[in-house]
Amino acid sequence: MPTCELVTIGSELLNGSVLNTNAQFLSRQVTDLHIDVIHQSSCRDREEEILGTLSLAFKRADLIVVTGGLGPTPDDITREAIAKFFRCGLKFDQHQYRHIVYHFRVRRRMPPFMTRREAYLPEVAKPLLNRFGIALGFYVSKNGRLLIALPGVPIELERMFKAKVKKLILQTFKNRPRFYTLEARTSGLYETQIIKKLGSSFFKARTFEFGIYPELGEVAIRIKARDRRLIAVLRRELAEKLGDAVYSFKGKTLSDLIGEKLTVQKKTLACAESCTGGLLARHITDPPGASRYFQGSLVAYSNQLKVNHLGVPKALIKQCGAVSPEVARAMAKAVRLKYDTAIGISVTGIAGPAGGTKRKPAGLVYIGISDLRKNNVFRFRFLGDRQKVRVQAARKALFLLWQWLQKR
Amino acid sequence: MPTCELVTIGSELLNGSVLNTNAQFLSRQVTDLHIDVIHQSSCRDREEEILGTLSLAFKRADLIVVTGGLGPTPDDITREAIAKFFRCGLKFDQHQYRHIVYHFRVRRRMPPFMTRREAYLPEVAKPLLNRFGIALGFYVSKNGRLLIALPGVPIELERMFKAKVKKLILQTFKNRPRFYTLEARTSGLYETQIIKKLGSSFFKARTFEFGIYPELGEVAIRIKARDRRLIAVLRRELAEKLGDAVYSFKGKTLSDLIGEKLTVQKKTLACAESCTGGLLARHITDPPGASRYFQGSLVAYSNQLKVNHLGVPKALIKQCGAVSPEVARAMAKAVRLKYDTAIGISVTGIAGPAGGTKRKPAGLVYIGISDLRKNNVFRFRFLGDRQKVRVQAARKALFLLWQWLQKR
Repeated sequence: MPTCELVTIGSELLNGSVLNTNAQFLSRQVTDLHIDVIHQSSCRDREEEILGTLSLAFKRADLIVVTGGLGPTPDDITREAIAKFFRCGLKFDQHQYRHIVYHFRVRRRMPPFMTRREAYLPEVAKPLLNRFGIALGFYVSKNGRLLIALPGVPIELERMFKAKVKKLILQTFKNRPRFYTLEARTSGLYETQIIKKLGSSFFKARTFEFGIYPELGEVAIRIKARDRRLIAVLRRELAEKLGDAVYSFKGKTLSDLIGEKLTVQKKTLACAESCTGGLLARHITDPPGASRYFQGSLVAYSNQLKVNHLGVPKALIKQCGAVSPEVARAMAKAVRLKYDTAIGISVTGIAGPAGGTKRKPAGLVYIGISDLRKNNVFRFRFLGDRQKVRVQAARKALFLLWQWLQKR
Repeated sequence: MPTCELVTIGSELLNGSVLNTNAQFLSRQVTDLHIDVIHQSSCRDREEEILGTLSLAFKRADLIVVTGGLGPTPDDITREAIAKFFRCGLKFDQHQYRHIVYHFRVRRRMPPFMTRREAYLPEVAKPLLNRFGIALGFYVSKNGRLLIALPGVPIELERMFKAKVKKLILQTFKNRPRFYTLEARTSGLYETQIIKKLGSSFFKARTFEFGIYPELGEVAIRIKARDRRLIAVLRRELAEKLGDAVYSFKGKTLSDLIGEKLTVQKKTLACAESCTGGLLARHITDPPGASRYFQGSLVAYSNQLKVNHLGVPKALIKQCGAVSPEVARAMAKAVRLKYDTAIGISVTGIAGPAGGTKRKPAGLVYIGISDLRKNNVFRFRFLGDRQKVRVQAARKALFLLWQWLQKR
């Protein structure tokens, strides 16, 4: 099986200025092509460090994907370092330069002189034109190995990968063994609870790779096997043993699934949010076409809005507090009636760090769901800082809503 | 200057299941301690790959921080691999085990048998107790080098780093040269425009490290120098040359700055959002204490909500379309009046991928801001997929709001 190493270059990665989303994007894409990503390295924009990293990568892997350091500014030296690695000079690519001039012309600007650098590539390399930005990509084939260099701007990298690089990799590595994969996304169970529910028999006397990945409020299970029938068997067993903690086997998000359910059931939805401050609505509107079922959300951050515009009784807030099961229930019902939807969902809680008390600590969140037949409330105590509490609260609200829709 | 290598272990990183946020967190923390992070490696949960990666890291760096692979499940083998690397066995830590039992007891559960593994560490290592989860961390000091192993669950890692690891690093590496840093966050200018505005004189005849990092809709500049006075000079020059494109020198977010301005000016804010679907409100409520100035947001995703609950005239939407300067203006004004705030801000646009036309393509976004004196509208055409358009629209709205508050 061909192997791959990712080399992401840029001092901004090593001083923590930038989150390395390119490594994840490329890992996923290359894995999907049935090539094993065995290593990922990041180094600074320094020639000797880039050369050292490249030479190790060439020893370890068949495919090397390099990103970053192809920009126009003086700190970008990846193209020169790769040329040095292959002991060659740089050449000018007329096509890419014409594209750079065009890129600036449509923006009614002259190309700055320094952008000329963007049209150079190592002499041994072939160009990968970048129609989505100004930095030229390129690749070098040598002794059965393939090095691909791509700009580090995520959107350019992603588009170039899909437009050109994928095909190039498939043409170069024809002997890729076929693997089958399975992903189960779960909510509501801990990692250890899942392993216990699966039991040791799940892992015995059959060959597959098993990974279990806890995220904030969720756990994902990923399985890889060469036998297609085994995948089907494992899928059935996961569904049986984990029950409705599994919400998806197809890599779909809760937002996607909720959208599908609401569309099929011809139902509409509205939210009333307090501590999540719009995050729940943002997730519900992640899938394109959410306007078919989503009316909107009232982010009632102040109590004044809860009372005057959502219609939660002032006395109720005074008596029970804005963070209470009673107010969560009232918010869900009020937003459903006000915006005339089939379902209303509400979140109210204490995101922290301040605002908590002994009886109502930071992390306490109530989620209400209301339809014509029922108004339910659920209570949670999430751990973590303000952002983590908010993220967990929004995810849990989505999970509860999905379960609610399952049962109708 | 001491150097550091980060080793993040886990097949989930290399198949793209998980975004490596730990690498960024640790990079930033270690850099802040004036230690150069020179390399970052990720490898799979396989013994020979972990051993190979550790042995390279020990050649390159003084401080090695290893994360991941310390969980209770059979795929977690980091502690065994590190023991093998140091040619020793494992020992049991009574304190951590007692903590594990306690951790489960407060959750009213028995510790599953497999969690016993979590209390083991290599014989040559000293424990770093984990009070925030169940996986034991540890460290090994050898020949002036320090290896630290931490669990990969971000929240446990982050808390352990702040509670214990930071101090341990400072005690071990006493000779850290003092550096001064400067960060400028900008919006509204491209990377090349910034470099051109700074001019070549900015970079001449003085010694500092300069990094420029384009993100979605923003550019950050980071500077590092040994001379404190130089940092002050550079800061002044950046402010002069880039004008109000620089919104912060202190690593503050736009949400923080908007919160400060609104608090000082004793003004309140409400939003009306369409395509951003709650994302703008989410950002405005990122800072703790946002309830002092933020009333709430009406996420009017459907036209029905825009008309019936926000009060945008139906005829206006029919005549100009929901994505138009007229509707953006009406939304900002309506939400300000409705929720009785000093300022109203609105976003309406086409996030895509569908819904665009030749005259109104996907990515077209109007942002309206309204106060007692003025109702302004701004037009943008953002590039990228649905999520990127939404993120850019929300960020631009924050930037415009900050500029608006600057001028009052």
